[in-house]
Amino acid sequence: MTTDQISITTATHKKEKPSQDQVPFGTIFTDHMFMMNYDTNEGWHDPRIVPYAPISLDPAAMIFHYGQTVFEGLKAYRAEDGRILLFRPEKNFQRLNLSSDRLSIPPIDEERMLEYLIKLLEVEKDWVPSTLKTSLYIRPFIISTEPNLAVGPSRTYTFMIILSPVGSYFPGGIRPVTIHVEEQFTRAAKGGTGMAKTAGNYSSGYQAQAIAKKEGNADVLWLDGAEKKYIEEVGSMNIFFKINGEIITPALTGSILKGITRMSIIELLQSWGMPVTERKISIEEVYQAFTEGTIEEVFGTGTAAIISPIGELNWQGQKMIINNHEIGEVSQKLYDTITGIQRGQLEDPFGWVVALS
Amino acid sequence: MTTDQISITTATHKKEKPSQDQVPFGTIFTDHMFMMNYDTNEGWHDPRIVPYAPISLDPAAMIFHYGQTVFEGLKAYRAEDGRILLFRPEKNFQRLNLSSDRLSIPPIDEERMLEYLIKLLEVEKDWVPSTLKTSLYIRPFIISTEPNLAVGPSRTYTFMIILSPVGSYFPGGIRPVTIHVEEQFTRAAKGGTGMAKTAGNYSSGYQAQAIAKKEGNADVLWLDGAEKKYIEEVGSMNIFFKINGEIITPALTGSILKGITRMSIIELLQSWGMPVTERKISIEEVYQAFTEGTIEEVFGTGTAAIISPIGELNWQGQKMIINNHEIGEVSQKLYDTITGIQRGQLEDPFGWVVALS
Repeated sequence: MTTDQISITTATHKKEKPSQDQVPFGTIFTDHMFMMNYDTNEGWHDPRIVPYAPISLDPAAMIFHYGQTVFEGLKAYRAEDGRILLFRPEKNFQRLNLSSDRLSIPPIDEERMLEYLIKLLEVEKDWVPSTLKTSLYIRPFIISTEPNLAVGPSRTYTFMIILSPVGSYFPGGIRPVTIHVEEQFTRAAKGGTGMAKTAGNYSSGYQAQAIAKKEGNADVLWLDGAEKKYIEEVGSMNIFFKINGEIITPALTGSILKGITRMSIIELLQSWGMPVTERKISIEEVYQAFTEGTIEEVFGTGTAAIISPIGELNWQGQKMIINNHEIGEVSQKLYDTITGIQRGQLEDPFGWVVALS
Repeated sequence: MTTDQISITTATHKKEKPSQDQVPFGTIFTDHMFMMNYDTNEGWHDPRIVPYAPISLDPAAMIFHYGQTVFEGLKAYRAEDGRILLFRPEKNFQRLNLSSDRLSIPPIDEERMLEYLIKLLEVEKDWVPSTLKTSLYIRPFIISTEPNLAVGPSRTYTFMIILSPVGSYFPGGIRPVTIHVEEQFTRAAKGGTGMAKTAGNYSSGYQAQAIAKKEGNADVLWLDGAEKKYIEEVGSMNIFFKINGEIITPALTGSILKGITRMSIIELLQSWGMPVTERKISIEEVYQAFTEGTIEEVFGTGTAAIISPIGELNWQGQKMIINNHEIGEVSQKLYDTITGIQRGQLEDPFGWVVALS
């Protein structure tokens, strides 16, 4: 057996699957998971599918102390004809390696990762829910495992993929949310880790998010770390504006996550003859457009919600109501088209969808 | 039994203790560790000393995905009379709670934490090495353990203390190092997590540190995230400059760690009639002082090295040689005084030392 061959250990007890529509996000996991190890002698080795179970780590494992870790998030969908579909999974594994590079983690062969994922999904195919707007959330991640308190890159890692069936992100259909424009806390700085999907980028936002939620906001809009002037991301989503007919999204300057939904929206709008301008956009420019009445739509984009319309932005005590708290035409059309392609209900002219055979 | 009483489970097999002078930093651990759990119903509960062993966590535990974690680092020293001494441990537990606040982790009673640590040290007292310049490194840390992929604060945590005997940081005596002034990568931004001891702050520096080491530097000097103009920290230490008789250290603006060695040095210099100016200091100002020949000493400060003299700063292709690569008079005196107080060889007029009874 070469180390590239996947071994499979089947779970002896299978869990009961949840009622498909009422699953809270990210708390129920399937019967199996994928694991693979890295050390400096063998490289990545021992790919295996094993029963979902706790993992055992030395208390000095570097993940607990210095945060050297990366992750991805994508979904498997059940088409009406029963097929299981993935949406641009190769982009997630490309981005995982980009994140790993930033965090000094050794890369993984991207094609092989996709093979491992597909093999895991074949084992767990009955866990992909079939009711409308549900899906199977896929979480690949790498943790540093060497037991060593000296600050520096780990010499051992574990790569894992776990799967979680998820209900509809918007059970009552998509609806616009209220967002606080954050001026005190910073998500990421130029030269930092903002472009990487790494753990520390997420918990660093909890304090700002808690304050914003207390004040009735769903999440925060992050501004740049240097001047608190330019718009970066909303919560853990990218953001788009439609102002006076122009669709604008912040350029990827290194502190913003290179969203795969973001990329797909840019390509989709382009194909509709609605080019997106990727550039710096300041919160002052947005406020100016609001006062002039030229701001037409604002929406966040990400794997979880696909499109999350923003109905209100709170900035320095000013309430900017967007499109009368209603879903914009472009937002709705993007949501319908992308979710339609993801579920195999609409044609896929871009070759985005990967179907399990 | 109240939940505040510590239970002790003794290890049946004791490890062989290492040769005291040749221990690499942070890879050998003692026979026992301290653990305590948190959940929203019981708060912090079940404090216990148990045999040092791997811990078991769900693969969805939040620590692996969103980096909600904090830690501390301090040392226990063996005095010549055999007593075990701690250096300002209450400051570490105060700072742990400050870090926890930033990361939305529930605080722990600081006095109780010190009691737990002392109890653990009593169990492990034979592990505190006695040869010159060795010590027992103490690592308290908190990890978020709830198995949940929804981004947000965990509802369960584990607090642990592990202990590691460490050899001399400078086996051949302290010696000046060469440091690269980093202009591309950023450690922390205003409004970020720079003032907290949290995992993500450390691995984010690996890429810059690897490049600097390849070019012959021991570590990097971080500049501010906004302008890359003002000096922040060196590696994971605070930094001091002596320029034309004035001792200067960067002010605590929120992106710099509030070092306990830093604080002690400021108090010690003050007591010697050498007040320290805490203010913004730009790399241009340092370079200017270098060209004018007024830069007298530069040194990093932290728990690991206490004082790490800097003999050379590399900035934009310019080599700034400090004090002819020699240890400065103030650096040496600070090192001798603080290590002398820590080991009970010198009088402790500040009441910094806590002795185990």
